[in-house]
This record gives sequence, structure tokens and C-alpha cells, in this order.
Amino acid sequence: MLNFDADRFLRIEAGALALAGPIHAAVGAALDRGARNIFFLGTGGAAILMQPAALLLQRRSGFPAFMEIAAELVAAGHHALGPDSIVVIPSLSGTTRESVATFDYCKARGATIITLVGHRDTPLGQKADHALVNFAEDDTSSESFYLQSLLIALSVMAHRSEFPSYERTVAELVTLPKHLLAAKQTFEPEAGRLAEAFRTEPYHIITAAGGSWAEAWYYGMCILEEMQWIRTRPVHAADFFHGTLELVEKGVSVIILKGEDSCRPLTDRVETFARQYTDKVTLLDAATFQMPGVSAETRALISHVILATILERLSAHLEVKRNHPLTTRRYYKKVSY
Amino acid sequence: MLNFDADRFLRIEAGALALAGPIHAAVGAALDRGARNIFFLGTGGAAILMQPAALLLQRRSGFPAFMEIAAELVAAGHHALGPDSIVVIPSLSGTTRESVATFDYCKARGATIITLVGHRDTPLGQKADHALVNFAEDDTSSESFYLQSLLIALSVMAHRSEFPSYERTVAELVTLPKHLLAAKQTFEPEAGRLAEAFRTEPYHIITAAGGSWAEAWYYGMCILEEMQWIRTRPVHAADFFHGTLELVEKGVSVIILKGEDSCRPLTDRVETFARQYTDKVTLLDAATFQMPGVSAETRALISHVILATILERLSAHLEVKRNHPLTTRRYYKKVSY
Repeated sequence: MLNFDADRFLRIEAGALALAGPIHAAVGAALDRGARNIFFLGTGGAAILMQPAALLLQRRSGFPAFMEIAAELVAAGHHALGPDSIVVIPSLSGTTRESVATFDYCKARGATIITLVGHRDTPLGQKADHALVNFAEDDTSSESFYLQSLLIALSVMAHRSEFPSYERTVAELVTLPKHLLAAKQTFEPEAGRLAEAFRTEPYHIITAAGGSWAEAWYYGMCILEEMQWIRTRPVHAADFFHGTLELVEKGVSVIILKGEDSCRPLTDRVETFARQYTDKVTLLDAATFQMPGVSAETRALISHVILATILERLSAHLEVKRNHPLTTRRYYKKVSY
Repeated sequence: MLNFDADRFLRIEAGALALAGPIHAAVGAALDRGARNIFFLGTGGAAILMQPAALLLQRRSGFPAFMEIAAELVAAGHHALGPDSIVVIPSLSGTTRESVATFDYCKARGATIITLVGHRDTPLGQKADHALVNFAEDDTSSESFYLQSLLIALSVMAHRSEFPSYERTVAELVTLPKHLLAAKQTFEPEAGRLAEAFRTEPYHIITAAGGSWAEAWYYGMCILEEMQWIRTRPVHAADFFHGTLELVEKGVSVIILKGEDSCRPLTDRVETFARQYTDKVTLLDAATFQMPGVSAETRALISHVILATILERLSAHLEVKRNHPLTTRRYYKKVSY
């Protein structure tokens, strides 16, 4: 595979999953101390990567879960945040300015704080009630954060007897790194073809639904916009039909991410529409990747992880075909604002 | 003012505010019957117009409030939805297919349903537990729906003794139509200039924060995309710095909507950045419009209503300057999908 270190990938994703035990213990301790709700409070891309876990709890658990824009929470407050709250703050660097501000705000209100960081020796690694440390970098952090936040959500439900298949699910998740690697290998030729097709494409509509919506939003904003300077319109598959559809015509790129959860029909509808009105439909479907031994129930929980892992291959080819390194920025961490 | 009927506007917005009493009674009845949470479940633009009210409750009330994508709720369910839920469904036509499906789904689960419709003699007007009827059309519905949902949120808080200034606030809100009309008149020349500047503009980044974020999202998707077929990137002011900022360069249009709530500094930050790197910054600031007799507290609650009302003027000029009627569609309600 192009510019890819398989061993490093396997090590990082296995590292995320090896946190299942410490996560279960940390969540259990917080619940034992009387926690009554949970907030997922990241900044930018890291915030988006928490969304599938927050959605899972909102839809299937009686434990109130909130996903807020951290800067707004700090500016506007939140009625449910307090000493009975668990706050999850993901920050790979452990130093993100807004995330440190969020930490201080929540700590002052007595919350129990779990941080997900890449390095222990950082402000967010040192000050947390529970710091869960797994080194990752931009090319591996999506899967790592998705999996850690999923483990947190599953742990909450397991402790509350809302998810009877917890042990089996975690056992299946632990096998994921090799399946994700296989998905990358399967997708590699298509990634090269797509990158060539996208080389001079100036604008993409990118859409998804359910747990996979986060990945469409993330890939549009944090990869295509930030790392490739390509205009995108991330739009939820349900919202697509209430405005953005009018922009579709021959020559307009529409990227559809399909997951295997119950919201899949929303993306089927977009596909049926888009194929009639543009010749540039790209369908990336989590269901097409084999994962022997992984149940349908678990697959539905991690469609966004599969999509993230194959999209990383697209990014690797895009930076080469477009001669635009993924690390090049005009402004981010280069100028002050 | 261009293509504008002031009497009709005043009548429609006064009609929305005249629902304060019926809304307070309907909410009170639902709470008396033991309602324990509230869902705002619109489709497309109508869903977005409920967001400021949902945010207000989430941040300042102990009454759990949810804003979900209705199609996802129907597909994936929601743990908190049940006989103890109040469900608010806005649909101007009273016939929106997805909203009728949402209604049936929630009714089957025993929820108390309040609909906000333009006509009583429609499915959503007839079947609701409480149908609140106020005729409006595309050019007046944003303010009407914003105000009705705000009245619902304030009523919930008032019934729970969480908003002591309820009576005074409603009295101030009732004076809004004339202030909104004055804001339109003040903005009219600028609307014409902006429409001329935007006439051939192919792409806008549009951003806001707090209660006003809904309006940036709505105006980008439902007006510029749907009604003018112009590409937009609605992005929250906090997210802007985590991806979209890299697209800003000379010649790129950035539209910043500023409200008067506590999240305003997030948009100040975007403005400071954008003014350095593009010559096309459009700032629309709710604070610049006079509203004698309206307190700062109330102004902060309705910034998005002011922004919607002045943006309607921009739309009126855009359709003329661009020779593209706001009612022209390629697909919406023209083809099946």
C-alpha cells in the first residue's frame, strides 16, 4: 500500500482496543460515585469522532448523553453539567487550547473527566481523573478515537445492564485491526482510481446517515477542506433532500458513505436520486468489506470505522496525485487567530 | 421595499406571537399530565428552525430537550421517546411526508404531539393533540417558526419556575413585528447592494454561533442552495477553525452572522481572521438594529429572528438581480425520489 506502515497501524488500533479494560474500570468507578450523565466534548475533528458513541447512548441507553460544541458549552453553559457528570475530552496532542479551556470549565463544576490523549505527559494527560493514552497520528486517529469512544458508550450500557452482549462485542472488536487492514488492502486499487478521478475536482457533496454521518462530516471538513483545500458540502442524507439536492447536475461530485445500521435506507434514497442526475456518484459501502467472525450487530456499530479506514487510503493517494501533502496548511497552527 | 407586503408580514408574525396563550396552555396541560421531556422533530428547514429553542432548553432548563433528525429517529428510535414525551412537529403545509411519518411513529409510542402548521385542515393540523395554526409562506415562515418554538421553550421554563421574567419577555416579544419590519427597512439598501455583489458569486462560506447558528445553516441550505442554486458551506464558527479556514483566500466569500448571546465572541474570532485573508467578508450583526423597549435579555433570545428577517430582504433582491425566482426548483416536489 502507498505510504503505509501496516505494523504501525495494527499496533495503534490494537492499542485503542487494549483500553477496553481501563475504560470499563474508569466508567464503572464514575458510575459507582453516582454519575448521572455523560458529555462528549471535543474540539473540531476530535469532537466529530465522538458523535457515533453519543448517538448510540442517546438512542439505546437511559443514561443521558450529550455531545456539545465545547467552545459553546464554555460560553453558554449547560444545565446538566455538574458534579454528577462524566466528561470525555479527546485530544491527540493533549494540549489543544480549546480542550484545555473545556477541561478547566468542567473541572470547576466538579465533573469527572476522562481524557483520550496520545501522550500522558501533557496537560490533558496529567490533570484528568482518568487519562486513557494511546499514541496515534492523523492517519490513524480516526479509528482510534472512534473505537475508544465506542468502548466508553458500550461500557456505560454494560454497567447499566442495557447491553447484554458486551463481552462478546468487545471480543469481536479486538479482532478489528486485522479486518481494517484487510479492508485497506481491498480498497487500495480503488483508492488510487478515485484519487485520480478527484485530482482536479473542485467541489464534493459528501453525505451519510446514522453512525456514519460523523465520518462524512469529518472527512469533508478535516481532510478534504483542511488537508487538501478542496471545497466540500458535508450534508446529512436526510437534509440532502431539503436544499442541497438542487445543486446536483451532470458533473457535480456526490460522495455517499453507506453504513450497515438502521439508517442505511436514508443513503439508499440519496443514491437512487443522485445516479439519475449526475455522472459523478462515488459510493463507499461498509457492507462490501469482509470481516469473518464479526457479527452483524457489531458491524452495524462500526461502519464509520471501516469507512474511515478506507478513506485514509484515498487521502494517501490524493496527496500524491494532487502533489499536496496532507500536512500542508495555510493557517492552522501557522498564524495566530 | 422590493416585492414586499408590510401588512401581510405584520399580520403573520403577530399571528405567531398571538399563539403565546394557546402554547402556554398546551404545554401546561402536557406537563400536568406528567410529561418528562420534549422533542423537536421537524424535517429539513423546519427542523433547523427549532434548534434555537431546543438549545435554550438544553442549556438553561432541567427539562430534557432533544432535537433529532426526524428520519433518523423513525429509523433508529430514541430511548427517551415515549408516553411521557412532548413532541413538537413543525410543518407549514401540514402534509410533509416525513413529518406525517414522524407523527405516526411518535403517536404509536404515546407521545403528546404539538404541531405547528399553516392550515388546520391538514393531516398534521387535524390529528395533533394540540395544533397551533398560523398561516405563513416561505418568506415569513422562518420568523414565525422561530417565535413559536421560542414560546414553547419559554413556556416550559416558566411552568417549571426556571424563567421568572416570562410575562415581561412575552410582552416584549409581542412588540417584535414592528421592530422586525423596521429592521427590514433599515437593511433594504444594503440588501440591494449585497445582492448585486453576490450576483455572480459561485460559493459562500456562511457561519454563526449560539442561537444564530441555525440561521446560517438554514440560509445556506434552504435559501442559497435550494432557492438560488448557489454552492454554500454552512459551518459553525467553532468548527470553522478546524478545517474550513484553509479554504479562505482572496476572493472567497465569507458571510458571518452575529448574534447578541454569550456565543458572540466565537464569531468575533472568525471575523478577525477572515478580514485578514479575504476581501469578501459580509458581516450581518443583529446588534445593529434598534428595538426600543426590548431588553438586552430578550434581544439575546431573538438574534436569529432579526437575522432571518433581514436575510429575507437579501433573498428578495437576489431573485431579481440573478433573474432566478425563489420558487424555481430542479427537483424538489417536481420529481419523485
